Amino acid sequence: MRIVFLGSGNVATHLGIALSTSGQQITQVWSRSKANAEHLAERLHAPAIDDLSSLDRNADLYLIAVKDDVIQDLVPFLQHLHGVVAHTSGATAIDVLQGIENKGVFYPLQTFSKQKALDLSDTPMCLEANSTAAMQVLEAAAKLISTARYTLDSEQRKVLHLAAVFACNFSNHLYHLGHSLLQARGLDFEILKPLIAETARKIEDAVPFDVQTGPAVRGDQETMVKHLRLLDDRPDLQEIYKTLSESIKKTHL
Amino acid sequence: MRIVFLGSGNVATHLGIALSTSGQQITQVWSRSKANAEHLAERLHAPAIDDLSSLDRNADLYLIAVKDDVIQDLVPFLQHLHGVVAHTSGATAIDVLQGIENKGVFYPLQTFSKQKALDLSDTPMCLEANSTAAMQVLEAAAKLISTARYTLDSEQRKVLHLAAVFACNFSNHLYHLGHSLLQARGLDFEILKPLIAETARKIEDAVPFDVQTGPAVRGDQETMVKHLRLLDDRPDLQEIYKTLSESIKKTHL
Repeated sequence: MRIVFLGSGNVATHLGIALSTSGQQITQVWSRSKANAEHLAERLHAPAIDDLSSLDRNADLYLIAVKDDVIQDLVPFLQHLHGVVAHTSGATAIDVLQGIENKGVFYPLQTFSKQKALDLSDTPMCLEANSTAAMQVLEAAAKLISTARYTLDSEQRKVLHLAAVFACNFSNHLYHLGHSLLQARGLDFEILKPLIAETARKIEDAVPFDVQTGPAVRGDQETMVKHLRLLDDRPDLQEIYKTLSESIKKTHL
Repeated sequence: MRIVFLGSGNVATHLGIALSTSGQQITQVWSRSKANAEHLAERLHAPAIDDLSSLDRNADLYLIAVKDDVIQDLVPFLQHLHGVVAHTSGATAIDVLQGIENKGVFYPLQTFSKQKALDLSDTPMCLEANSTAAMQVLEAAAKLISTARYTLDSEQRKVLHLAAVFACNFSNHLYHLGHSLLQARGLDFEILKPLIAETARKIEDAVPFDVQTGPAVRGDQETMVKHLRLLDDRPDLQEIYKTLSESIKKTHL
């Protein structure tokens, strides 16, 4: 498979390395910044471009991995191609690829940091396409990367993206808040890590509802009052504490 | 070491099994309910009692693992003992053990489910005592269970407990909210699990602040508006979304 990458950020880097390692030929890496394009292109043994008029028009797959609001700016340059053009955004509908004949979405549901190598083999690849032929190309590419592949339409993908914000982005922020509470009293964050790990591990084989613990689900009003008092100097954290405790109580009525 | 357990819930069960497995003698299990006492006592090869007047008065360690607000009801029955009396509560000060000569706290920072065996070997054991001799007994017992031992006073333990509510209890509820959003649209929760696992794994070797992702930290207003619109039928989730997104934005200003 001949693949062109549009974008050179975290998603492009991880997908590029995974596809290149699986033996596919990356024929170009485009980025608005030539330096960024070159940086990734070098790792993928591909030429770098910063000008879309020199786009390789004979690739099988064009993967768009740029910021969500930049996707539409690239669309005019990707018309009249034979290959499949797919974006990699969770929150963007397939329709953004207006006028493109063979189009799709190739969305890896994972949290990427540029610095860290990541095994994508169990990363859910969420696929959508406007034709069976286009879906076959995306399926073939996804299969090279991961054993977990899902066909989701744009509505479903939006909901999945939202669910991921709740379960992952917000959880990470709660880790941070725990960290900052400990730090303020000179306590080591290390002490919390085994509990965080076990909390996440638990739901591998249990429904989160069934393993909820803590004062709110027990209806332990006394502890909740004590906790709010401890947060007297942090009204912002009091609000988060109240909002989430109320939600837990309502859920477990 | 001769150990008496007061309580027969999750904490008593896990600590009891760990201490018994390490070769310590559990000399009694007390519970208000004889049936519950017998259930755990059988697993620990110990006699069960439901009457505190028949308490073994020659144990080295009495571990109180009952609901927080019941601890003080047991205190009058635990006076004039030679052994160390310790409660296992994160949110309760050592002072609750009024009049007891050798007292302490033996708090395992972990989330326990009765059904599931748990390796306690990296569970942080948070210890406090009112004398060096009492601390030595707690240290010796904790060492049999875990490699991670911390000396925390009651104030520090309160903050740790609060931090754990944020980082763990609240995170689990956010997993549940993600689950319920997917379920409402017929999507499988399985699809989120690798991302939840990676989010927790990431902070093993990174500070949560540094690995925050998602629309709020990017300042991606467009996606946040779309997400709130998707939650039009769930004003409770809209409130959580807004509260946590605001907190993320404020944190990463």
